[in-house]
Amino acid sequence: MKLLEERIRQDGVVLPGNVLKVNQFLNHQIDPQLMYEIGQEFARLFKESPITKILTVEASGIAPAIMAGLVMNVPVVFARKKKPSTLDAGVYTAEVYSYTKKVTNTISVDQKFLSAKDNVLVIDDFLANGQAVQGLLEICRQAQAEVSGVGIVVEKSFQKGVSLIKESGVRLESLARIASFENGEVRFVEE
Amino acid sequence: MKLLEERIRQDGVVLPGNVLKVNQFLNHQIDPQLMYEIGQEFARLFKESPITKILTVEASGIAPAIMAGLVMNVPVVFARKKKPSTLDAGVYTAEVYSYTKKVTNTISVDQKFLSAKDNVLVIDDFLANGQAVQGLLEICRQAQAEVSGVGIVVEKSFQKGVSLIKESGVRLESLARIASFENGEVRFVEE
Repeated sequence: MKLLEERIRQDGVVLPGNVLKVNQFLNHQIDPQLMYEIGQEFARLFKESPITKILTVEASGIAPAIMAGLVMNVPVVFARKKKPSTLDAGVYTAEVYSYTKKVTNTISVDQKFLSAKDNVLVIDDFLANGQAVQGLLEICRQAQAEVSGVGIVVEKSFQKGVSLIKESGVRLESLARIASFENGEVRFVEE
Repeated sequence: MKLLEERIRQDGVVLPGNVLKVNQFLNHQIDPQLMYEIGQEFARLFKESPITKILTVEASGIAPAIMAGLVMNVPVVFARKKKPSTLDAGVYTAEVYSYTKKVTNTISVDQKFLSAKDNVLVIDDFLANGQAVQGLLEICRQAQAEVSGVGIVVEKSFQKGVSLIKESGVRLESLARIASFENGEVRFVEE
């Protein structure tokens, strides 16, 4: 998605350790118009799929997910990162290890909001090692929901998340695919 | 906002202790069309104000805030709930006490994204004791930004948040105003 690549070149900040910060328009400040364009692009890519629900995880996944939900006219569910209390009966849970923060978090979704009747599009802001997406797919498995695919805003193609998802046979669509960082510059995967 | 009141009556769940759960369309599953209507309503209410930025807090504030940002064509900034690390120089912070969870959290906003040049609309999903909104207003004060007002999706009018905000002289617009809960039913403030 050209518009997104241009925005990453313009406003993305490359930090040591192959870290890309896009706080200017996605992860802290959000550009609603760009998010709407992203929602339209996800809707276009998955227009043949009978999607009934979009699943993401708080907090940065919400903005692109809700715009896709607006365009596709389906509800959005965001998995919560806090551990469900013992009082919360009826939740799907998955463990998500964060390589950057070196901690394991439990994400959860109320069973009311995902079932075997659903056809799910999983959306997240970033794909690096793929742990968050794997957690969301695990929750879909527990719900016995169909998964039409995974939509990612920014993919770091050189990390293992891409192959993890493809090995599980799930369709992956990433709107910006980063091949490498060279001298603080972003190089995108050539189409 | 009639549409929102109807939705609260239909899908809201009243729990003991004056707790209203709207997980069906706002706090866990989100209805993007309803959020878009909410965004339009905030835009209508504040159309005379020269707003340059919307400020909210993760995670449940993001959906209504981003739709208001889409309609009003301004960026949205969400305050983060995690404590900024000592490495994060240049952040505004405020302490927010949660009466339901009985913990104090630090919320923070990168100074890059809010300044004295901004005219801010603060948006949040719920207003009860007003601590989150007070924290967001404190961050605006630190940034020396103008505040045009506070937009709330669901206000519990019988708790102290309303008077806290009004005493500080800030305009408050709530789309649904709950007067009380009676036998598990929601009673709205009569207009």
